[in-house]
Amino acid sequence: MSNNLAPWRSILSRSLHRNRSLANARYFQLATINMNGEPANRTVVFRGFLEETNKLQIITDSRSDKIRQINHNSAGEICWYFPKTREQFRLSGNLKIIDKNYLEQSIRVKMWQKLSDSARQQFTWPEPGKPMIENKDNFSCPIPSDKEPVTDFVLLLFTPKKVDHLELREKPHQRTIYCLDNSQRWMIQAVNP
Amino acid sequence: MSNNLAPWRSILSRSLHRNRSLANARYFQLATINMNGEPANRTVVFRGFLEETNKLQIITDSRSDKIRQINHNSAGEICWYFPKTREQFRLSGNLKIIDKNYLEQSIRVKMWQKLSDSARQQFTWPEPGKPMIENKDNFSCPIPSDKEPVTDFVLLLFTPKKVDHLELREKPHQRTIYCLDNSQRWMIQAVNP
Repeated sequence: MSNNLAPWRSILSRSLHRNRSLANARYFQLATINMNGEPANRTVVFRGFLEETNKLQIITDSRSDKIRQINHNSAGEICWYFPKTREQFRLSGNLKIIDKNYLEQSIRVKMWQKLSDSARQQFTWPEPGKPMIENKDNFSCPIPSDKEPVTDFVLLLFTPKKVDHLELREKPHQRTIYCLDNSQRWMIQAVNP
Repeated sequence: MSNNLAPWRSILSRSLHRNRSLANARYFQLATINMNGEPANRTVVFRGFLEETNKLQIITDSRSDKIRQINHNSAGEICWYFPKTREQFRLSGNLKIIDKNYLEQSIRVKMWQKLSDSARQQFTWPEPGKPMIENKDNFSCPIPSDKEPVTDFVLLLFTPKKVDHLELREKPHQRTIYCLDNSQRWMIQAVNP
């Protein structure tokens, strides 16, 4: 298993550990391309790596704009800033949608079972981005079962092909680029910050 | 002057004020499109609004990737997360490059004069993104004059056309969209989170 882990994984694990006192150190910004070819950018929560892979897990609602965008163009870039250690990771790669129609459901079900009740309940809310429904009852549906995911629950898998790590604590700043070559090996290069 | 201020300006000012104890509350993530049509995303520092306008100021190096990208496609989206108040602003719009060739130099010079010596010195460092030059002397050029900007100093102006404000403290979350209409008036709409 550990042989499959990319060389940037231990660096990222260390950053997560050193910033563990900050809840928002597990949030990052995911950029995609919208239907007009313009960039879209939003904060999402890191839900761990898919086991034995370098794929980052994110959850979302099938009715959200990002699903339409990823269906159209699967490219994404994650920008992850760690405030305590003053480090940034930029991960470029592609997103895969694991929704209710995906053949292999086990990873989607497993993620659903890990969520809190309050996270699960958000998938019963009215359609995101539509004009606000004033009636608050629409936001207080019963908490769905923890066994089976609801229809709109989507697991996103992000597969990085390039990782750019910047350390701002050092003077001069340190910057290292990890890049998959044609034989799917990770190449490492120190570059000017 | 205050008549020109967009309705989201006072909301954003309040968030900046409430998060002022956190240095990183003045950092946001700027997404652009790279030369392959893929998203690019990095953390930048908010350098205030250009006076009497709704344009956000950012500084960068003329040799950075984002300058090549913005020259090719000026669209951008800023994602700005405020950890203390658990709010997110997404600002979509366009970027304008104010470099050494720009006709009107006064705003570029003004920004340069506001910077710290250490920020100014970074513009004398070797070309960003190129293989690391091991000799540390290359990173310790004399601090440039505070009067006139160096060649590679660039001011970016970001003009928002849409702002999406999400408040996560509330249950259900509150989300408001501000959008410029055809007559350049800001329309406001509460939407489902």
